[in-house]
Amino acid sequence: MINKFSKLKSITESEIIEKYLKKLNFDKRESFGFKNDSAYLNSFKNKKTIVTNDSIIENVDFFKNDSAQSIAHKIVTSNLSDLSAMGAKPYCYTLNLCMPKYITIDWLESFSYYLIKLQKKYNFFLLGGDLSKSKQLMISSTFFGHAEYKNIILRDHINIDDDIWVTGSLGETYAGLKILKNKISKNLDIKIKNYFLKKYYFPTPCMIGYKIAKYCNSGIDVSDGFICDLKKMIGTRFGAKIQLNSLPTSRFMKIMLKKNALRFDEIINCGDDYELILIVPKKNYDKILEIAYKNKIKISKIGKIIKTKGIFSEYGKSIIQKNYFKHFA
Amino acid sequence: MINKFSKLKSITESEIIEKYLKKLNFDKRESFGFKNDSAYLNSFKNKKTIVTNDSIIENVDFFKNDSAQSIAHKIVTSNLSDLSAMGAKPYCYTLNLCMPKYITIDWLESFSYYLIKLQKKYNFFLLGGDLSKSKQLMISSTFFGHAEYKNIILRDHINIDDDIWVTGSLGETYAGLKILKNKISKNLDIKIKNYFLKKYYFPTPCMIGYKIAKYCNSGIDVSDGFICDLKKMIGTRFGAKIQLNSLPTSRFMKIMLKKNALRFDEIINCGDDYELILIVPKKNYDKILEIAYKNKIKISKIGKIIKTKGIFSEYGKSIIQKNYFKHFA
Repeated sequence: MINKFSKLKSITESEIIEKYLKKLNFDKRESFGFKNDSAYLNSFKNKKTIVTNDSIIENVDFFKNDSAQSIAHKIVTSNLSDLSAMGAKPYCYTLNLCMPKYITIDWLESFSYYLIKLQKKYNFFLLGGDLSKSKQLMISSTFFGHAEYKNIILRDHINIDDDIWVTGSLGETYAGLKILKNKISKNLDIKIKNYFLKKYYFPTPCMIGYKIAKYCNSGIDVSDGFICDLKKMIGTRFGAKIQLNSLPTSRFMKIMLKKNALRFDEIINCGDDYELILIVPKKNYDKILEIAYKNKIKISKIGKIIKTKGIFSEYGKSIIQKNYFKHFA
Repeated sequence: MINKFSKLKSITESEIIEKYLKKLNFDKRESFGFKNDSAYLNSFKNKKTIVTNDSIIENVDFFKNDSAQSIAHKIVTSNLSDLSAMGAKPYCYTLNLCMPKYITIDWLESFSYYLIKLQKKYNFFLLGGDLSKSKQLMISSTFFGHAEYKNIILRDHINIDDDIWVTGSLGETYAGLKILKNKISKNLDIKIKNYFLKKYYFPTPCMIGYKIAKYCNSGIDVSDGFICDLKKMIGTRFGAKIQLNSLPTSRFMKIMLKKNALRFDEIINCGDDYELILIVPKKNYDKILEIAYKNKIKISKIGKIIKTKGIFSEYGKSIIQKNYFKHFA
């Protein structure tokens, strides 16, 4: 019998697959029961298979002692968020797990059970994967989704006078990270601290993409801060006028701002929010509100596309983007 | 201007994509010019999209000072070999590059140019990817291919009396690794040394899979040694009788064996050969030889499937599989 707290060296690769990963397949034919090194994708009539991939790495995207659940949550959220931003419905994924010696059987068990929970919630399954040894914990994943070709949301399909919308509230995971790093010294209520820490460890993807795709011109998920990601969309061809006081912040974030625990420019320039910025033709205003309401998604119209290049406040003041030039190393 | 020997910290992520990775896309529509975080796959009439993925990691699958070309070669070979073993024709791939600080711009340039060379040779393109920082160099890749559903080669579609074939020569990369590690002390001709080192650094995938798929019952690529991979196919349901003297070895390997520089049981139990083991109905004997001949692929009929479980020599002696229980860490 395998002791669940023991290290991985007491278990073979095939045992890891049999005991933990096979359950994540939900008995789908596409994987041939994990008996081959490859699998196949079904094609659906009039649908394209959308592909995205992301890696998360110890000490870059999470910390060594973060829970297996939080790590599982992050690899899934970053990929589902990309699918949603393309207007795609989740289908399946592959998992490349590179695990260092400190990983225990117990960790693998928590990690895989949590993945099953997310798979059931968002309706996708594990197609295949690969296991390796490494010094740092690294997880790469390729996610597959479906979308009708004409509904794929592109980043640069934009017209002047289109409305700019954003889902959810901004800056939540960033606030959590700052609290975690003890960089916020103000006396904060424990409830507020825990609220933001939860947002940091378990950020939620906004899965409204494929429901709303038909009514959007363009979209992106916020992964490098609101201003940076908005700029990726408008590029050098357009500008945006933003009503700063319409930018959505949570009740607790308002308290943080009031206490000067965070500055407003940090909130709009930093962090993986996994909310969607959507560029929408004016005429679809009602439709957007209706779909968001039906799906219980908070959504705010926060500005519009203009001819003058740059990003401006409602008073015409230029909003400077901070930390834009992300150097690689 | 970027100094090509400088470290990655002088370059942004978008510059890496623009300067090095975009060329690997061959201007294919599926990627939207790398402007989105996702891409799509085209579906082809009557074809399934085959998916496989593999990671290679510094100090596990290659050494720190191995050339960028050899590392590029290995991530491509291990994935193309899996596609071939499924009977699929290469289509495209995604690349997750996790790079440590020691990687230079020069390395990236060599790596990407070599990938272009392989992409042209085997006819596939880069669909998308992801860049991260890490302590070890780690490359994960998902490869896509096409195959007709009825021609997908499975691992366990086997009948008694089927012929067992193997492509190429066995043990070549393993011999290279042993020479590299100075574990072969015999005085070896420099020509022989270089021959095997090249096989280790640049193993070739046997891309006959999709041409021969129609005529095979089952197949696998040799990634854990011939005996181990044959056993993965026959499982606990069948046995195999192998004519040991038919197992293909190269001219130089015969010299190594004669000099006792390697033992025969090492050759059949170790190494990533990336050759294919194919299980073929007897009646397709001529067809297999014909296709292999046309494609200039060396192929050998080396045994047959029998009812008695186990792997046996032509004289009925059981061939014991060594190093089978691969523990994970």
